[in-house]
Amino acid sequence: MILALAGGVGGAKLAQGLALALPPGELSVVVNTADDFELYGLRICPDLDTVLYTLAGIADPVNGWGIAGDTHHALGQIAAYGRDPWFRLGDRDIATHILRTERLRQGATLTEAVAELAAACGVASRLLPMTDDPVATLVDTPGGRLAFQDYFVARRQRDDVLSVVFDGVETARLPDGVAAAVAAAELVVLCPSNPIVSLGPILAVPGLRAALAASAAPVVAVSPIVGGRALKGPADRMLATLGHEVSAAGVAALYAGFHGLVDALVIDGADADLAPRIEAFGLRALVTSTVMGDADDRRRLAREVLAFGRQLALAGSEVR
Amino acid sequence: MILALAGGVGGAKLAQGLALALPPGELSVVVNTADDFELYGLRICPDLDTVLYTLAGIADPVNGWGIAGDTHHALGQIAAYGRDPWFRLGDRDIATHILRTERLRQGATLTEAVAELAAACGVASRLLPMTDDPVATLVDTPGGRLAFQDYFVARRQRDDVLSVVFDGVETARLPDGVAAAVAAAELVVLCPSNPIVSLGPILAVPGLRAALAASAAPVVAVSPIVGGRALKGPADRMLATLGHEVSAAGVAALYAGFHGLVDALVIDGADADLAPRIEAFGLRALVTSTVMGDADDRRRLAREVLAFGRQLALAGSEVR
Repeated sequence: MILALAGGVGGAKLAQGLALALPPGELSVVVNTADDFELYGLRICPDLDTVLYTLAGIADPVNGWGIAGDTHHALGQIAAYGRDPWFRLGDRDIATHILRTERLRQGATLTEAVAELAAACGVASRLLPMTDDPVATLVDTPGGRLAFQDYFVARRQRDDVLSVVFDGVETARLPDGVAAAVAAAELVVLCPSNPIVSLGPILAVPGLRAALAASAAPVVAVSPIVGGRALKGPADRMLATLGHEVSAAGVAALYAGFHGLVDALVIDGADADLAPRIEAFGLRALVTSTVMGDADDRRRLAREVLAFGRQLALAGSEVR
Repeated sequence: MILALAGGVGGAKLAQGLALALPPGELSVVVNTADDFELYGLRICPDLDTVLYTLAGIADPVNGWGIAGDTHHALGQIAAYGRDPWFRLGDRDIATHILRTERLRQGATLTEAVAELAAACGVASRLLPMTDDPVATLVDTPGGRLAFQDYFVARRQRDDVLSVVFDGVETARLPDGVAAAVAAAELVVLCPSNPIVSLGPILAVPGLRAALAASAAPVVAVSPIVGGRALKGPADRMLATLGHEVSAAGVAALYAGFHGLVDALVIDGADADLAPRIEAFGLRALVTSTVMGDADDRRRLAREVLAFGRQLALAGSEVR
């Protein structure tokens, strides 16, 4: 069993690669829910949906989020009713939000609601919200505190992020399914998602880091920073304003801050010269091509990460 | 001020005619809510939406219900998730259900939620749910009791209706806005909607009939049966299985059963020979063309109904 921790588009791509590289049902993906919010009374889970649509093979190939070929007629009518259509909900996409919201109103957990949607889409991997409890990422900017989607979508990440808060995370409970997936994992992969606001909330859920530390499974991260830039999203600017080095070495330093939790970092060939610095942080480094295009590419990177993980596991068992 | 009581498509057409024939803001329409139901966690109000879309000029011109040119992508995805797409929700239409459901969850009354949607659509007429409390039409058939939309949509009205129950109506409260609209009305029009399951529930809300009886305003009904057939829907078969004559005279007998509440019935030229029988029931009869096509046609019928109402009011004041 392989466990991946993922945020949105970048994480979803590697999760899809892992699902393609592994026998069906051998992958669990724990997904960030701190970006979730309510809109027009519907519960929206951007990262879960991106991973769901990607694993189901229906994700929009250009954006990486949303459903391929989706239309926006419902949102147009919502705008006609005078409401701000700031968050681009597709018509097919809205079906997901409607059905998830229905199940939550009926008393289902988010874990249950997501499992049902994933099963209906024929997704064999386990898709696991990091928690069923409400956690909300808030970002402090020079102009004040913003809800995450205000920062990310409405204001298009134009604000400097001075600090980040995961509101509610202290009391968020780790779902049994996540604890079980950690316990069963032979390898844990931190996908190339934003380390601050995508993987940060997952790793902040009480009990998760202790569970990872208690496991013998190697933890391999894949750098979302290539050549000093984020492949997608504001991770590079966010690292800078939060005082981190904007490079794969900066990502390594960040993960090294978890005191032995992360064993290795996969970096792109463009950053090969950073490998010695990364190893100086106590992380093993694998240099390969980490920029993922189509499904073949995603599977190729996944296979390399899996092989690297097996090496680390062998080396670990030799040490013991 | 003119007050119309309406169900779905037929009622909406005459309501639109009245809105076009009157100065803006002089029409209130009380609409049946006993067909309302919840679907995928959304509150659906078929009759209110039909009247809303028709008054807003966006109703589908072929069906009479739904929004013109609407698509069904969200419903397709709901079906892809394995749910039964038995009720044909359009994408733009779903926006209405989402926003109404949101407001109801926030604690707004249905009256408030509907008023906001109507105002946003530029509808000058007052659109009033018959009650803000839950009422559900149930039909007893040879195969057992059915929820109204199961009978009407899912089973396409194929069952004989042996009796009808308006579940919850005994405790349903008449909204203040409806009571005020009755008190202010110079004329009350019972639109050519199904007298059993569209106007029946409205007239069954406690307090409405007493308010109408206390008003000096004439009450004019328009027959939904023309030439022994319903213009739309199952009213004809329903009248038959419930033991009523399937004709404008049968409708007159039904309304005469309200003991003086209804003053007159407007019937189609095809039924001119029934006028003496209708008058024998104590109702005045107006014979004209009641089959409504386009907006001009609806306004023409509305003008005739308004003129007839004024005559009745004059005659009534002469009697007093």
